[in-house]
Amino acid sequence: MSIKEQITDIAKAARKASRQVAALNTAQKNRVLTDIRDRLTAQKTRLQKKNRKDIDAAEKQGLSEAMIDRLRLSDKVIDGMAEGLDDVIRLPDPVGEIEKMWKRPNGLQVGRVRIPLGVIGMIYESRPNVTIDAAGLCLKSGNAVILRGGKEAIHSNLALAEIVQQALTASGVAGTAVQIIPTVDREAVNEMLKLQALIDVIIPRGGEGLIRTVYENSRIPVIAHYKGVCHVFVDQSADPAMAENIVVNSKTHRPGVCNALETLLVHSAFAEKHLATLITVLKENGVRLRGCKKTCRKIEGIEEATEADWHEEYLDLRLAVKIVSSLEEAMDHIAHYGSKHTETIVTSDYANGRKFLSAVDSSVVLINASTRFNDGGQLGLGAEIGISTSKLHAFGPMGLEELTTRKFIVFGDGQIRA
Amino acid sequence: MSIKEQITDIAKAARKASRQVAALNTAQKNRVLTDIRDRLTAQKTRLQKKNRKDIDAAEKQGLSEAMIDRLRLSDKVIDGMAEGLDDVIRLPDPVGEIEKMWKRPNGLQVGRVRIPLGVIGMIYESRPNVTIDAAGLCLKSGNAVILRGGKEAIHSNLALAEIVQQALTASGVAGTAVQIIPTVDREAVNEMLKLQALIDVIIPRGGEGLIRTVYENSRIPVIAHYKGVCHVFVDQSADPAMAENIVVNSKTHRPGVCNALETLLVHSAFAEKHLATLITVLKENGVRLRGCKKTCRKIEGIEEATEADWHEEYLDLRLAVKIVSSLEEAMDHIAHYGSKHTETIVTSDYANGRKFLSAVDSSVVLINASTRFNDGGQLGLGAEIGISTSKLHAFGPMGLEELTTRKFIVFGDGQIRA
Repeated sequence: MSIKEQITDIAKAARKASRQVAALNTAQKNRVLTDIRDRLTAQKTRLQKKNRKDIDAAEKQGLSEAMIDRLRLSDKVIDGMAEGLDDVIRLPDPVGEIEKMWKRPNGLQVGRVRIPLGVIGMIYESRPNVTIDAAGLCLKSGNAVILRGGKEAIHSNLALAEIVQQALTASGVAGTAVQIIPTVDREAVNEMLKLQALIDVIIPRGGEGLIRTVYENSRIPVIAHYKGVCHVFVDQSADPAMAENIVVNSKTHRPGVCNALETLLVHSAFAEKHLATLITVLKENGVRLRGCKKTCRKIEGIEEATEADWHEEYLDLRLAVKIVSSLEEAMDHIAHYGSKHTETIVTSDYANGRKFLSAVDSSVVLINASTRFNDGGQLGLGAEIGISTSKLHAFGPMGLEELTTRKFIVFGDGQIRA
Repeated sequence: MSIKEQITDIAKAARKASRQVAALNTAQKNRVLTDIRDRLTAQKTRLQKKNRKDIDAAEKQGLSEAMIDRLRLSDKVIDGMAEGLDDVIRLPDPVGEIEKMWKRPNGLQVGRVRIPLGVIGMIYESRPNVTIDAAGLCLKSGNAVILRGGKEAIHSNLALAEIVQQALTASGVAGTAVQIIPTVDREAVNEMLKLQALIDVIIPRGGEGLIRTVYENSRIPVIAHYKGVCHVFVDQSADPAMAENIVVNSKTHRPGVCNALETLLVHSAFAEKHLATLITVLKENGVRLRGCKKTCRKIEGIEEATEADWHEEYLDLRLAVKIVSSLEEAMDHIAHYGSKHTETIVTSDYANGRKFLSAVDSSVVLINASTRFNDGGQLGLGAEIGISTSKLHAFGPMGLEELTTRKFIVFGDGQIRA
């Protein structure tokens, strides 16, 4: 069988299973998720044996210790996956929700009911725990899912999917509701991205290269986030202690993630009084800085930023600093260089807070809070399957609701159009 | 300037204007729309003179009378566009709407606010009135729009856009918020479809060929509807008079549109007693029929349907009829051959109505009402910019709300992540 035929068969089976999963009620879905959780714990040893194959191969290939660590299904990682499933079990089921119904003049009663998307294609790198996270979220939202993990984790992913399939079939649900692409051939992804009649959405998670490749080759709608070039703007009226806390937390709490601060914008009047202290604190926290001309003139020993710095997602303890003369200049900078991810203003000015909140075009816009709050869990959505920086369908953290859509339902008594 | 440069410049100007349009309040937007309406009426003669150029060219090319009629900006068509704008003015503005806000344990207040998508690309055929409809809906929802109409209507479309731009600039808004692609070169569409950084969504409206081309070539997310292979299922318990009304209305009220009935599914028990009468009435209404084997055995003089008929969007007074032995068989048929557009059940059985409503995976699912109600106006959304048969972002009629998305806003008091 060619790879094309193999992938098409997988997608056809997923499409068929999706009708069955969409019809499950919440109790049935939670039963499957509970069963997966229990089997994960019960089969820990078997999982770790399969995981060993991936680790061995990675060691043989000379992958970095950090990479190998991300592959490892330690007791802690498996317990984490089980806890993640518990979280998803506790989340309300979005499927079937009707926000409101209304009546038309002719007596028709019209509403919009939340329904699963159908078949979701997930493409991701390395960490095998995504396999269980994604399976849990997709099943709870009534979807079938086709998973394509990193080639380094293929044995772990297949073993995890087997557990999911055991739980599905034990409840009388087609195991094909959750499938792993069993080949590591890259051609498999290309074939997958062509099946617009069988897969409803592609969610890639990984580095910029992966996301770009998927966007460029997919005939299926893609939801993803490219980059997180996040900004904090410290306004003239900002409380200096609050500004310091928020800037330091946004930059240093976890510098390698997408909602970490990358460019600090400081109002010139605030900079005049407080920038030196702020920069000292950042340096004490190990942050390496680059600044605009004005920053460099004001503070000694800071390297001048190039145009590339303002576009840069450092994902590291590095920060670009720019002094601006107004809120408007800050917002123009964000509109030009930002990635629509996360932007914070630190201010005690009512009107400026309102302006920033309404005019900044990013998935999460905050007043007086760390950029690190752009996260499904932190914002109260429960678990998230990713963060979208494109505006269609979902913008920002994607929880269960973002894995669904709405159809119209109409109750009539024989109405026809005149 | 190359076409690529020309289109890129248009899109850049649209992106810039989109920030300004997004910041307008409802009163300002309604003022622009009112001004467009008034100018349409005041400049009727000038418009009709420009329209004459398109008509003359169409006549010279020997286009059909029907085609030429669709191009014509008659007094009635211009009045219709003005009335359409009045409807849009009356519709509530979705921008800025916050459905709910919630508080996190750490005191953060979180909400989701509705915002414009940004820049919309509309690609459509022939009828120049779409130019005004689309401009009105896009502006009211706070978006900039790039319009690419049919080449036959280029002079009319440019004249209409000029009126929109006069109204925009008279209110101090950049005229580039609504632009027409000024060249009829096909290359312009290809270039437009590559500008994913400048255009947020493409909405094509037209025949299957256009939609397919756009889907296949676009790097930008596309929302569109392919086909409307709509079904009515007449259940065993259906009221015969109601079934007849709904079937005849669904098929004959306007057979050339996407929400017209294409395949009739009849429960065998209903068929036994009432199919002959139903078919007689359909024939009296000029409907030509094709039937499944059982239908042909039961009713004389009906041509047997081929496999292709069940996939067919006739858009004509033609209908395929199939006798099924159960609700499940009807739903399986719809899942296999349907286009996720519009499906109706005629029934007096409570459980069957509920099953159909919940299991049928179409943008509009109705009980005891004509398929012709799948329409933004009829369902109470106000005007519509199109009907989507793909599930992402919008499924079914798209009104103002579907031209927006939501961002998260967060009010803090200095919160950081621990």
